[in-house]
Amino acid sequence: MMDKRTPTKEEALSYFRERNNWGRWGPDDQRGAINLITAEKRVRAAGLVRSGRSVSLSRPFPKEPGPNNALPAQHYMKTLPRGKGGFAADYYGIFYHGVASTHIDALCHTWDDEAMWNGRDPKQEITFDGARFGSIEHWSDGILTRGVMLDVPRHRGVPCVTQDTPVHGWELEDILVKRGIRLEPGDAVCVYSGREAWQAQDPERPYSRPFTAGQQPQRPGLHVSCLPFLRDHDVSVLVWDMLDHLPIGYDIPWAVHAVLFAYGVALLDNALLEPLAKACVEERRDEFMLVIAPLPVVGGTGSPANPLAVF
Amino acid sequence: MMDKRTPTKEEALSYFRERNNWGRWGPDDQRGAINLITAEKRVRAAGLVRSGRSVSLSRPFPKEPGPNNALPAQHYMKTLPRGKGGFAADYYGIFYHGVASTHIDALCHTWDDEAMWNGRDPKQEITFDGARFGSIEHWSDGILTRGVMLDVPRHRGVPCVTQDTPVHGWELEDILVKRGIRLEPGDAVCVYSGREAWQAQDPERPYSRPFTAGQQPQRPGLHVSCLPFLRDHDVSVLVWDMLDHLPIGYDIPWAVHAVLFAYGVALLDNALLEPLAKACVEERRDEFMLVIAPLPVVGGTGSPANPLAVF
Amino acid sequence: MMDKRTPTKEEALSYFRERNNWGRWGPDDQRGAINLITAEKRVRAAGLVRSGRSVSLSRPFPKEPGPNNALPAQHYMKTLPRGKGGFAADYYGIFYHGVASTHIDALCHTWDDEAMWNGRDPKQEITFDGARFGSIEHWSDGILTRGVMLDVPRHRGVPCVTQDTPVHGWELEDILVKRGIRLEPGDAVCVYSGREAWQAQDPERPYSRPFTAGQQPQRPGLHVSCLPFLRDHDVSVLVWDMLDHLPIGYDIPWAVHAVLFAYGVALLDNALLEPLAKACVEERRDEFMLVIAPLPVVGGTGSPANPLAVF
Amino acid sequence: MMDKRTPTKEEALSYFRERNNWGRWGPDDQRGAINLITAEKRVRAAGLVRSGRSVSLSRPFPKEPGPNNALPAQHYMKTLPRGKGGFAADYYGIFYHGVASTHIDALCHTWDDEAMWNGRDPKQEITFDGARFGSIEHWSDGILTRGVMLDVPRHRGVPCVTQDTPVHGWELEDILVKRGIRLEPGDAVCVYSGREAWQAQDPERPYSRPFTAGQQPQRPGLHVSCLPFLRDHDVSVLVWDMLDHLPIGYDIPWAVHAVLFAYGVALLDNALLEPLAKACVEERRDEFMLVIAPLPVVGGTGSPANPLAVF
Repeated sequence: MMDKRTPTKEEALSYFRERNNWGRWGPDDQRGAINLITAEKRVRAAGLVRSGRSVSLSRPFPKEPGPNNALPAQHYMKTLPRGKGGFAADYYGIFYHGVASTHIDALCHTWDDEAMWNGRDPKQEITFDGARFGSIEHWSDGILTRGVMLDVPRHRGVPCVTQDTPVHGWELEDILVKRGIRLEPGDAVCVYSGREAWQAQDPERPYSRPFTAGQQPQRPGLHVSCLPFLRDHDVSVLVWDMLDHLPIGYDIPWAVHAVLFAYGVALLDNALLEPLAKACVEERRDEFMLVIAPLPVVGGTGSPANPLAVF
Repeated sequence: MMDKRTPTKEEALSYFRERNNWGRWGPDDQRGAINLITAEKRVRAAGLVRSGRSVSLSRPFPKEPGPNNALPAQHYMKTLPRGKGGFAADYYGIFYHGVASTHIDALCHTWDDEAMWNGRDPKQEITFDGARFGSIEHWSDGILTRGVMLDVPRHRGVPCVTQDTPVHGWELEDILVKRGIRLEPGDAVCVYSGREAWQAQDPERPYSRPFTAGQQPQRPGLHVSCLPFLRDHDVSVLVWDMLDHLPIGYDIPWAVHAVLFAYGVALLDNALLEPLAKACVEERRDEFMLVIAPLPVVGGTGSPANPLAVF
Repeated sequence: MMDKRTPTKEEALSYFRERNNWGRWGPDDQRGAINLITAEKRVRAAGLVRSGRSVSLSRPFPKEPGPNNALPAQHYMKTLPRGKGGFAADYYGIFYHGVASTHIDALCHTWDDEAMWNGRDPKQEITFDGARFGSIEHWSDGILTRGVMLDVPRHRGVPCVTQDTPVHGWELEDILVKRGIRLEPGDAVCVYSGREAWQAQDPERPYSRPFTAGQQPQRPGLHVSCLPFLRDHDVSVLVWDMLDHLPIGYDIPWAVHAVLFAYGVALLDNALLEPLAKACVEERRDEFMLVIAPLPVVGGTGSPANPLAVF
Repeated sequence: MMDKRTPTKEEALSYFRERNNWGRWGPDDQRGAINLITAEKRVRAAGLVRSGRSVSLSRPFPKEPGPNNALPAQHYMKTLPRGKGGFAADYYGIFYHGVASTHIDALCHTWDDEAMWNGRDPKQEITFDGARFGSIEHWSDGILTRGVMLDVPRHRGVPCVTQDTPVHGWELEDILVKRGIRLEPGDAVCVYSGREAWQAQDPERPYSRPFTAGQQPQRPGLHVSCLPFLRDHDVSVLVWDMLDHLPIGYDIPWAVHAVLFAYGVALLDNALLEPLAKACVEERRDEFMLVIAPLPVVGGTGSPANPLAVF
C-alpha cells in the first residue's frame, strides 16, 4: 500500500539514488527500460488492436511564436520546376525540447550531480557532435507496446490538474484500482492532466514560467512522488501532457525527469492526450497499442515524434 | 495478364491522365489512397504481428556531407546546468526531400502541367507558408497497414537493380505470382532494389546524378510501367529504396512520382530495405504490419519518418 | 517652409505616388537613391574622419528570446580537434526583419497595391529562391557616405519619443535649422528617437505590438509626414532606432517604409543610436563618415549589418 | 634580410611559441593586434580615400552546393500581405568557417596543444553557448585601417599560386621591396594568390581536399614561413583568398592560422581579391582604406563579412 504523504527530501533522493536501474541490463546498456518491451510484449500489444481506431498523440509542429514557444520551429518552402510540372519541398528546423513540441527524450537528456544513465559522466559523454551514450538512435527500431491511460481529471471530476493540486504517485495507484487496471512491465503509461483545459482558462499564460534569475519557476504537473509508482510497475515509457510539477519542492535538479537517468524510462513530453482520453471513454477501454518511432539521429538527445495509439 | 512491353508515351500519359483517382474520395479529399486503409484494414494489419520482431526502415538522419547529400541535415547541441545537474538539448534542421533522408511525400509534393492531386492548381495551393492542399497533416493519425515485400534482387538472383535494368510493372507482377502473394487494397508495397549493394560497388558515386543544365540525370530504379501495377492493386503506399528510374525516357516531368498527384498514393522515399529483406527471408514471410507516423507539420510537403515493420 | 500640419490621406498618398523616383536612374535600376552616393561623395565622406573615433550602430546579434524577439537568432557551436590542437566554429541563423536585429532593407522588401521599386510587380519578382529585382546584392560594394545625426530627444529635451508624440517631418527640419545642418544629396540621416530609454521604462513591453487579428498595432516612431523631408533632401539612407509610428493613421500599407519602393531609399532598421548620439555630443559634431557593408546574398531582401560611424 | 630557406620544425615552432604576443596588451586582452589600429591610424587610413572607388572583397553568400561548399548556406523566403500591399522577408543560415564563405576569424577560432590566444585554455573558454574569450564581439566597433595589396601572381608573372609553389615570407618581403611599399603597424595585408584563376583551371576540383581519415589534405596557399613576416611588420589583419598551404609539412596543427592564437592577428578568409588586384593596377596604387564590420555575435568565433576597399 502506497504511503499518501509527501516524501521527505531523503525519500525523494532515495527514489533515484537507491532504487536506480543502473547495471540492470548491463553496464553498457543504452536502452534502459525499453529493454522490458520484448518481442512477446509487442505481440500482446498488437493484440489490443480490435476496433482499428487510430489516434495521434502529437500536437502540431510548433511553428507559431507564443507564450509557450520562445523558439518556434522553422518551416520554409521552396518550389522548383521539373519539365512542364514542378514540385514543392520544405525545410524543417526545431529545437524540440521545451514545452511546445511533442517529443521523446533519450536517456542522455538529463543528469544530476551524480551521473547520467547507467552511472556515466556527462562531461565525457556529451560532446559538440552529440551524445556518445544513451542517445536516441538506440531506440531506432521503435517503441511498440501496451499503452495505458491514467486520466487524472476524470478521476478527480475536474477539467484539469492545477498548480495547487499536483499529481501524486498514490493518486495514480488509486486510478489503477478504481479502473481495475493491472500494469505490466514494459507498459507505456499515459498520464493525462488536462493541459488543454488548463491553457484554455488563460490562453496567454505560459504553461511553463521560465527559468529566469531569481524567479521560482512554476507549472502544474506530476510530483516527484510519482517516481516509485513508475519504478514499482516497471513502466517503460511515461507519456504526459503536463510535465514535472514546479517548483519541485526539494533542492534537487530534476523531479519526474529523473526517471531518464535513474530508471532508464523514456519520456514522451507534451503529448496531446485530450483526444486520447476522449477515445478511451468512447471505446470504453483504458488500454491500446502505442507506437513511437523516433528519428534515428546518431547522438541525438531525443526526437520530435508523432505517437500513435491504436484501439 | 500484364503486357511485358515498354509503354509508349501515350500509354504512359494515360496512366495518370485517364486512370487518375481524382474525385474518387470527393473533390476536396486530401488523404488520397490512404483512405483505403480502413479501421478494419488496421485490425487485420495488427493481426500480422506474430513473432514481435521490429525492423526500422529508416536510414540514419543524414548529417554527413557526401555525394548523395548536398544539403546535409543539421544537428547542433546545447548543454545547460540545472541546479547541481544539467541537461543536453539539440537542434535538428533538414531539407528532407532528395535522396539522403528517409521521408514520406505528401500529396502536394509534385505536379505536372495539368494539376496537382485532385485537380488542384499548384499556383493557388503552394504558398510561402506551406501547401494549402494535400499537405502532410492530413495523415497525422498515422499510416498503419499491411506491408508487403517485393524483393527484386532476390527475384533476379543479383545483388541490385542497375541502370540498365529498370524495375518494370510486369516484373512486380511476376514476383507476386512467384511468391504467391495476393495484394489487397490499402497495402503498402515495399519494393527493394538493393540500393546499399549498388552503392557499395562505388561508394563515391552519387545515387542520383543531379539535375544540372544540359545534363541528362541518371539513376537506376522503377520504370513508369510500374504505375498500372500500383493502380490496379489499389496500393496506398509505395516504400522504396531506389526511386524512379532516370532518365524517364518520355517527355513527362514525373514517372513513378506521378502516383502522388494522379493516384493519391503516398511515397516513402529512401527507405532502408536491406534489413527488412533479410528479416523477410529469416521470418519466411513477405508480409508484416507497417507503421508510418509523419510529423504533423501544417502545410508540410512531407516528413522525415522512421517506418517500422513488425512481424 | 514646411507645413506643420498632419497630412490628409490624399497628401500622404501623393508622397509616394506623385513624387516617387521611378525611372529616375533608368527603368531597370536596382540601386535607387544609393546612386546619389557618387565616388566624389565618398571622398568627401572620408574627409570627415578627423578624430578617428569609431562607433558601432549595431545591437548585439539577437540570440535571446524576449518580448521584442519572437524568432530569436540561432547560434550553435562545434569544436573539432586538429592534430594536437583544435578549433571552434559556429552556425548563425537569422530571420532578420522585425524589430530585434540591426539590418538593412533592400528595395524589394516592401510594396503597396501599386508596385514595388521602379514600378515592378512583386508577383513576378519575388520567388521562392529570392527576389529577382531590387535585392541586396546590388549594394554589395557597400554604402559609404556622410552620416548626419538628427537627435530628437535632445531637440525636445526629453528621454525619448513616445506613442503620443510621433516624429514629424517638420520637426526634422527644425532640427536642421537649430543645429545649422545642411543636408546634401546622398546623405545618410540617422534619426535617433531614444529607443533604449523608451524600453528601459518598461523592459517587458514589446517595442512593436504585434500585428494580430483584430488588433491595432502600436509603436512610437516616425510619422508618414517624414516622407517629403526625405524626398526633398535626396536622402539615400534612413538609419533609425524607432521605426514607423503605428498605427499609421491612414488606410495605407506602409508609412515611412514606403521610401523603399517609392524613393529607392535604403532603410537601416533597429540601429543602436544611443552611443552615436552620445559621441556626437562629445565630439561636438553632427556629421561623420558612415559605412554599411551588407552581405552579398543574391536575391536577399536585406542583410544583418554592423554600420560604423567614424568621426 | 630574410632567410630564403624553408624553416625547420624548431624554427616554425619558435614563430608562435617564442615570438607570440601574449600579454602584450595585458593578460585579459581580447582584441589582439587590432589594438594596433589606433584612432590616429584610422584617420590616416581615411586619408587614403582619393578617387572614391569602392571594391567589395566578398564572394557571394554561398548558397549553392558544390565541391567547395559541403554545407551550403541557407536562404529561405517568406512573403506576407500588409494591407493592400505586402512584404518579403528571408532567413539566412550559415556555418561560415571553411572555404566557401568570406568571413573573419575571431581570436578564439584556433588553438594548439599549448593554448588559445593570450594563453587561455580552450577547455575553459569554449562552451556550448559560444566562446567566453577572444570572441568576435570584441571587434564590434569595426576594423578600419590601411589595406595593402601584395599581388603574388603579378609578382611572379603567372595566373596563380599552385600546389607546388607555396607563398613564402621572403617572397612577400620581395614584393614590398619591388613595389616600394613600407608596411606600418596596424596594416591589413591583402595577399592575393589568384584563387579564381586556379579554380578556373578545373571547376570541379575542390580548393581544399578535405580532412578525411588517412588522407593528407592538400591545397595551395601560404607557407608557415609567412609567420615572421606578419609578426615583424606588426600586421593586424591578413586578408587572403588562398589560405594556409597544405600539407603543412610539419607536425603542427596550424600553419598561418596560428597567427590567431599566437599573434592576435585577425584573418579574413576566402576574400575575393581578383577585383581588388585589378583595381590596384587601374588606380596605380597598392594601398587603400579597408573596412571590415563583423556582426556583433556575443561568443561568436567570427563572422561572415563584406570587406570594403576604398581608393
